[in-house]
Amino acid sequence: MRSRAPAAHWRELLFGRRLRTEEEQDEQLGAWSGVPVLGLDALASASYGPEAALTVLLPLGTAAAAGAMPWVVVAVLGVLLLVFLSYRQTIAAYPTGGGSFAVAKENLGRFAGVLAGSALALDYVLNVAVAISAGVGALISAVPELQPHTLALCLAVLALLVATNLRGIRTAGLVFVTPTYAFVFLLGATIAVGLVKALLAGGRPVPIDPAPQLPALGAGVGLWLLVHAFASGCTALTGVEAVSNAVPLFRPPAVRRARLTLTLLVLMLALLVAGVGALARFYGIGATAPGEAGYESVLSQLVGAVAGRGPWYCATMASVLAVLALSANTSFADFPRVCRLLALDEFLPAGFAHRGGRLVYTLGIVVLALCAGLLLVAFDGVTDRLIPLFAVGAFLAFTLSQAGMLAHWHRQGWRKHLRPLLLNGLGTFATAVTLIVIAVAKFCEGAWLTLVVLPLLLALFYAIRRHHERIERQTAAEGPLDLSRLREPLVVVPVKRLDRVARRALQCALSMSPQVQVVQVLAEELRTEDLTALWAEWVERPARAAGVRPPQLVRISSEYREFFGPFLAYLRRLSSEEPERTIAVVVPELAERRWYQFLLRHRATLLKGLLVLQGHARIVVISTPYYLRE
Amino acid sequence: MRSRAPAAHWRELLFGRRLRTEEEQDEQLGAWSGVPVLGLDALASASYGPEAALTVLLPLGTAAAAGAMPWVVVAVLGVLLLVFLSYRQTIAAYPTGGGSFAVAKENLGRFAGVLAGSALALDYVLNVAVAISAGVGALISAVPELQPHTLALCLAVLALLVATNLRGIRTAGLVFVTPTYAFVFLLGATIAVGLVKALLAGGRPVPIDPAPQLPALGAGVGLWLLVHAFASGCTALTGVEAVSNAVPLFRPPAVRRARLTLTLLVLMLALLVAGVGALARFYGIGATAPGEAGYESVLSQLVGAVAGRGPWYCATMASVLAVLALSANTSFADFPRVCRLLALDEFLPAGFAHRGGRLVYTLGIVVLALCAGLLLVAFDGVTDRLIPLFAVGAFLAFTLSQAGMLAHWHRQGWRKHLRPLLLNGLGTFATAVTLIVIAVAKFCEGAWLTLVVLPLLLALFYAIRRHHERIERQTAAEGPLDLSRLREPLVVVPVKRLDRVARRALQCALSMSPQVQVVQVLAEELRTEDLTALWAEWVERPARAAGVRPPQLVRISSEYREFFGPFLAYLRRLSSEEPERTIAVVVPELAERRWYQFLLRHRATLLKGLLVLQGHARIVVISTPYYLRE
Repeated sequence: MRSRAPAAHWRELLFGRRLRTEEEQDEQLGAWSGVPVLGLDALASASYGPEAALTVLLPLGTAAAAGAMPWVVVAVLGVLLLVFLSYRQTIAAYPTGGGSFAVAKENLGRFAGVLAGSALALDYVLNVAVAISAGVGALISAVPELQPHTLALCLAVLALLVATNLRGIRTAGLVFVTPTYAFVFLLGATIAVGLVKALLAGGRPVPIDPAPQLPALGAGVGLWLLVHAFASGCTALTGVEAVSNAVPLFRPPAVRRARLTLTLLVLMLALLVAGVGALARFYGIGATAPGEAGYESVLSQLVGAVAGRGPWYCATMASVLAVLALSANTSFADFPRVCRLLALDEFLPAGFAHRGGRLVYTLGIVVLALCAGLLLVAFDGVTDRLIPLFAVGAFLAFTLSQAGMLAHWHRQGWRKHLRPLLLNGLGTFATAVTLIVIAVAKFCEGAWLTLVVLPLLLALFYAIRRHHERIERQTAAEGPLDLSRLREPLVVVPVKRLDRVARRALQCALSMSPQVQVVQVLAEELRTEDLTALWAEWVERPARAAGVRPPQLVRISSEYREFFGPFLAYLRRLSSEEPERTIAVVVPELAERRWYQFLLRHRATLLKGLLVLQGHARIVVISTPYYLRE
Repeated sequence: MRSRAPAAHWRELLFGRRLRTEEEQDEQLGAWSGVPVLGLDALASASYGPEAALTVLLPLGTAAAAGAMPWVVVAVLGVLLLVFLSYRQTIAAYPTGGGSFAVAKENLGRFAGVLAGSALALDYVLNVAVAISAGVGALISAVPELQPHTLALCLAVLALLVATNLRGIRTAGLVFVTPTYAFVFLLGATIAVGLVKALLAGGRPVPIDPAPQLPALGAGVGLWLLVHAFASGCTALTGVEAVSNAVPLFRPPAVRRARLTLTLLVLMLALLVAGVGALARFYGIGATAPGEAGYESVLSQLVGAVAGRGPWYCATMASVLAVLALSANTSFADFPRVCRLLALDEFLPAGFAHRGGRLVYTLGIVVLALCAGLLLVAFDGVTDRLIPLFAVGAFLAFTLSQAGMLAHWHRQGWRKHLRPLLLNGLGTFATAVTLIVIAVAKFCEGAWLTLVVLPLLLALFYAIRRHHERIERQTAAEGPLDLSRLREPLVVVPVKRLDRVARRALQCALSMSPQVQVVQVLAEELRTEDLTALWAEWVERPARAAGVRPPQLVRISSEYREFFGPFLAYLRRLSSEEPERTIAVVVPELAERRWYQFLLRHRATLLKGLLVLQGHARIVVISTPYYLRE
């Protein structure tokens, strides 16, 4: 056999050496390294959630919008608190990880589980495309010269994420730890300084770089506007579920560490969202119209107002940008795990449940990257229009998970678990209401698409499952092997001329069965060398000498100058003449190790393919490769 | 086995029923039907050859150009006469057809033959692209609204040609006979009327629609200009060689019919070229600058001058246009035959020498269509720039063929064959001079590219030949079969669980050899069902009851969670422990008849591929397909 050294060498260089199954523990996460791996998505939402809410409030004018903002922020934080408490419970109740899929499946039935899984899978794919696109978009608004390279930059970030994640969870933690904590520190410090300034100035701080003030468009603060702003602000919550899906990624005690990570994460997120909301009010900062001249993100205005446009501003904005782009990483940690769970239930091919050389679910990572890459290419790297699709999937999964936990406590005996039951009941209500609000508020902006894509995904998953079930039904077997009708196969060797390739095939055939037929298909075009004259001397005599029954020579003429038709017809005839017998077709094959050589000699490959495609249960195919010296 | 009915049905609908080899004669051509099949290229040249010459003379101004034209036409017709007489001789000397390739190879050595073959092959590919593009271009200058659909129209014509030719030679003759003879009749009648008018008017006929008169650009009638015009005019000769390549296409007596077709063809061509040249002079018609405003083709001016712009004009120009576009058909008749000859000498894969269901060389037709299609797509349907490449290939083949015939007569005894020898000597001289003139005159316009592409083609052909020779050297064998070391193979069956698929494989293995090993690769991820506990009951007992040696159960653990690595390593170990033994690997395979099902279960396919790619001479692969019910 050939050594696999070169391929293995390259793989090792790119992805590191392969890891044994026992080495899993070295790859696992602690509470603090869990944040960069699983929390980037949630943290990044802090930068776009408040902005999304303020954008909805734009018609009020900057002043009124900033005034209305605290109400929205309080509502969002309320939902966040419920979701947090609920997922803390989920982590403890489902320490094998599984999040929405496992919880919904176990408590609400398989369909609810698959629905949650589909919603999450869709959400994760969108998240990758949108996050990368948003980060690159922010970079481009800072350095407009890069604009023509938008798509290339997006794909480069995607490639970085894929490579990092294929190297394993530990690498991902190490690579993303710096940007994560830099973001938290810089933005947190800015907010703290801003709040202190506001306090000292009695709630009316003087901005270093004042934000633009937009006039009101004559709209009043209506309930629907607030509800709509709340729905938009809820995008700040996406990503919070990630930790509960991935409890087994943590070092033991996994539950404790996972809960600690979740707490850290939600704390940072809540502080950042609350801080942004408060500062927006104190400094009178509103959204500017996205896509129009003079647009500036809320965070940029805020940092400018608090700290001016010096090096601090640059460092903070750079960290925001990095976290935005890298927030796609959460999907890379979680999407493969959702796929794995679907695969374990046979809703996806088994390969999704198989850990690769670096102990990650390689197939899931690759499929995620392909889907996101296709979206990026299809939208040319600008995926604004996908944003509305987003929160629907996440909140559908939230709701199913909450409802599942509700059923869980109910089944466990609601009297004993009254507090968690009430908590999850409240959570179910809040997330369901939020889901409906988001779906209605954003229906026209694109949320309707989710209603198209989700059923398609569900149909695909169920089709795969049905296929697996059909195979299982038809192949499952129990009990002792049936060897009652064991008989040597009738071996058929198609031969064009008696070269070394054919001789090898014939030797092999004669070693397997006493009944061998050599079949020659004759036509002028086929240039088959008729063996009749040589048969006695070259084949029959040595066979007798070796003590085996000489093979029989069969000649078939081909009136349409083709090999396959007459040969397959002969096999059909043979098989009806010997209705109990296995027919083994030996395919003499010139094995070539370079791919382009297949283009020159493909007959053997074609014959093997046709025999499987058009064959039947009693035909087996034997290939006897003959290797050329290089 | 499955019936192949649906595929066969569709094929029949598209290409007609398959033809038996004996039906060849019904497909063959008569002299008159030979013209549309083999002569469209040559006839179409009549429309662009004179124009090409007049375009070179453009700087002289219309009047002087028309005056110089007769000299050029006489020179071109002189070469045409020589080429005609020479190919008449070639047809008689090589009645199996072969034209330049066969003649050059037999008389000047194989290299000259392959060179001529490459030149012709290149010429034919270019001809298809350029002819279609020219025809569609003419259509578009008549109906400018079609301009955005240029490429689509080109590809549609290409598809028509491919489909017609795949249906066989007879269909091609029937489909193309009308446009061909309509063209000859309409253009011939126009010329006749014009000449009569000119005669009656004493050489100064009054044009119905006068052609534009362009002033001289101050250039005099120099020798180089005339030579250059001659070189361009010689494009009128391309396509004349086609008949000699395809003598076997004619009904017996093939030589007589082929010569008659050639004579008809050259006669029509000569009359048309001479007529166009004469009328250009009488009516004072010159070329207009191509690609500039006010451009009008010479033929269009000429028909307008003789017959005005009525229905006659429309009919004639429509026939010109059809013949231009369909002149690509000659390539479809000849290119596959050139490829066939190259394949018979092993310079191309054997498939090129194989006649398909309709007795045409299907592979050659498909490859020609692909190459031409790629050129059309690459140049977006506008292939003007390829025109200069053209005549070089044709005249290189002419010269090699003439020189080959010269050597032929010399070898036959020059005293006995003095007249043909002199004729071919003159032919060699004339075509060689023309070749040099064309190559020099058009070097900068693109003829240099031929010097790049031809060596590449030659290198490719010789590489394929060397590959074939290497295979032949390593596989050729003579003498009786060596059966001295015949021994049952050691059969290895990788098994994940004992389902029906595995049972089928195991039954098959036990029927072939007394020594069978069942190998299980164990890892948590692989979900292999460990058979140890069931082995005695499910396998060993029935085996003993059936009187065969029970198979041995081998368990391998996989520390990297993969199947292939440990399994292949085990085979390597086994093979070094049993250095004389054939190892037969039985691959239990769930055979699925729908292509997309391969996506779900690909392990068997992958294993078979790896075993051939990384295996060695003593490993054979047995696949035992297990079929699911639909």
